[in-house]
Amino acid sequence: MAKSPDISKKAIALHKKLGGKIRIVPAQTVKNRADLALVYTPGVAAVSTLIAGTKQTKKPLEEQQQLAREYTVKKRLIAVISDGSAVLGLGNIGPYGALPVMEGKAALFKAFGDVDAVPIVLSTQQTDEIVETIINIAPAFGGINLEDFAAPQCFEIEARVKEALNIPVMHDDQHGTAIAVYAALLNAAKVTKREFRKMRVVISGAGAAGTAIAKLLLLGGVKDILVLDSKGVINKRRKDLNLFKQELATITNPMGVEGDLSKALGGADAFIGVSAPNSMTSDQVKLMDTHPIVFALANPIPEIMPEDALQGGAAIVATGRSDYPNQINNSLVFPGVFRGALNNKVSKITDEMKLKAAQNLAALVKHPTAEKIIPGPFEKGIAKAVAKAIK
Amino acid sequence: MAKSPDISKKAIALHKKLGGKIRIVPAQTVKNRADLALVYTPGVAAVSTLIAGTKQTKKPLEEQQQLAREYTVKKRLIAVISDGSAVLGLGNIGPYGALPVMEGKAALFKAFGDVDAVPIVLSTQQTDEIVETIINIAPAFGGINLEDFAAPQCFEIEARVKEALNIPVMHDDQHGTAIAVYAALLNAAKVTKREFRKMRVVISGAGAAGTAIAKLLLLGGVKDILVLDSKGVINKRRKDLNLFKQELATITNPMGVEGDLSKALGGADAFIGVSAPNSMTSDQVKLMDTHPIVFALANPIPEIMPEDALQGGAAIVATGRSDYPNQINNSLVFPGVFRGALNNKVSKITDEMKLKAAQNLAALVKHPTAEKIIPGPFEKGIAKAVAKAIK
Repeated sequence: MAKSPDISKKAIALHKKLGGKIRIVPAQTVKNRADLALVYTPGVAAVSTLIAGTKQTKKPLEEQQQLAREYTVKKRLIAVISDGSAVLGLGNIGPYGALPVMEGKAALFKAFGDVDAVPIVLSTQQTDEIVETIINIAPAFGGINLEDFAAPQCFEIEARVKEALNIPVMHDDQHGTAIAVYAALLNAAKVTKREFRKMRVVISGAGAAGTAIAKLLLLGGVKDILVLDSKGVINKRRKDLNLFKQELATITNPMGVEGDLSKALGGADAFIGVSAPNSMTSDQVKLMDTHPIVFALANPIPEIMPEDALQGGAAIVATGRSDYPNQINNSLVFPGVFRGALNNKVSKITDEMKLKAAQNLAALVKHPTAEKIIPGPFEKGIAKAVAKAIK
Repeated sequence: MAKSPDISKKAIALHKKLGGKIRIVPAQTVKNRADLALVYTPGVAAVSTLIAGTKQTKKPLEEQQQLAREYTVKKRLIAVISDGSAVLGLGNIGPYGALPVMEGKAALFKAFGDVDAVPIVLSTQQTDEIVETIINIAPAFGGINLEDFAAPQCFEIEARVKEALNIPVMHDDQHGTAIAVYAALLNAAKVTKREFRKMRVVISGAGAAGTAIAKLLLLGGVKDILVLDSKGVINKRRKDLNLFKQELATITNPMGVEGDLSKALGGADAFIGVSAPNSMTSDQVKLMDTHPIVFALANPIPEIMPEDALQGGAAIVATGRSDYPNQINNSLVFPGVFRGALNNKVSKITDEMKLKAAQNLAALVKHPTAEKIIPGPFEKGIAKAVAKAIK
């Protein structure tokens, strides 16, 4: 990447200077005994009793949770939790390596969505322990953003935590990505004059993001979807699939296509890469339908560089990078999703909310063009538009 | 308590208005792509790699932890953790009732010690689960303040977490209280012209606070200590003691005293109450040595009201209340302890540090008098003085 060594040096220096990218500040000054009596003892005891009742006559748990969402940080606090098993493109580097990313995410939560978020990184990568730990620490939080958990464990972890808690839980690598991709694809279809639901979409990558994108597109009515893992197109004949890929084989690939990426791309309307750098060529773009859509989202080095995709005939190219047009980034999504969930005291983020969020995000681009199918991260009103969908 | 209903109403209204007593703010603004590239991707990847190495060549865990204490929030973030099993005087009201207290504590951490602290409340009260959960979430934190865990489980929980982690772990109800009491007692001995180590000290209450006070006084060289639980003086002949009280029976009560509070108080120099409201009378104060010291710390209603203690002949009276002289409060201690631990990258808080912290706190009162044996919570330099001891 251009200037990457320079950015690396600057980033390291900044992190050293800051020593942590977030700060905790009191919402109310504590300057004298009168403040202390309200913020802490004895006044706080009245709030504790209001929420919980007394030890003899405790209020029902559900009622306590609702009251905590009015009178405590549970009203506003999101936990950004990772086990460090799939951090950025760096892979399984563990909790300490994951921490700067989670802090960064907490900073973006505030900057983009006015959401208070705290980073939590786990010293375990055992699914049962992860699930138990997250459930055990949930009471103080109004929502849980799971982040950088590796597939396929991420699917079970999210499902179990979501089932156990009545606060919104979202694995952002799955659903944040899927919502952003869906929004961009809606506008890309519009620009290339395609009927969204009738597109043939090829998704390269069957991990957290690829799986969630496939499922959200299916929910939105797209029927002809092929998903590839490193062994090729996922289909019912393959014997090497884990449970989650077996499910993909059942719900995608209605024609039973077999083979590699080139085979899959024949006549495809759209390619969505959430896989590996430099894994696609211009010649492969030429195999697609005319004026195809190419989302090469591997980051920082995409499946195919935009100039090469365009040379292969792509009508629209999107990446995860800020130095090319059409940056598809989760930061368009997660601040608004949790802002909306908190505003509306939502207990689960449903499929319908995700679809609506994608539609709202797409609609922010009034007149989509080939170089503008998705808002830039610093445009106004993004989190607000997404938040409106989460209710 | 005077005006208590009024304080309760005001506290409830304030908590409703605030919806959480802390906020999370970015340490660095994120206003444009250049900011984003340093705080988040791609720049953050360099910091992650600096800390963790790569997935192929991970750095040793110890080295990762040290680097995280320089480049991440681990440098500054304290978790204030409770299971809600012993909240204030309210007892076992659970995590939701505990949350406003933990938030308040987080606010005080910042106000008094410039320490960034986040409240975590647990939905489990099982010792094994608590220990595992705290260990699992520890990587993001530079220290753990355990709070309002009930005795005797609190002893095992603290010991096991402390053993497992190489960041400071302190159960404040034990050690924060013990340090504050020790400091006040040092000055009370000075004012009443007693030799500190030769005092006979009676501690009413054998829970978290009473046990820790007894142990810290022993460490400081006080030899004649009696501890009482609800059944009377703890001694080796009693058959009803749990493991922790059996230990107290071994290390205190060298004369093998048996009996109730009145029996224990005969000739005592100091009484320290960390037990139940209204559990001591003026007549019992009269049983003590002349000019005795009375710390009645049950809160908000003390073991004996100051006016009654004085009537019984007490030379010095301290309580946990802000509306009487000599308020002994943990807020004098915990912000400084963790400020010092963070400043000096301390991995364990040792007994020596606690003693030194108490001495530093006592020394802040240049000329102790009967009505001034301990600094008020809003005096300057308290956290700094305590912090100097934690290295």
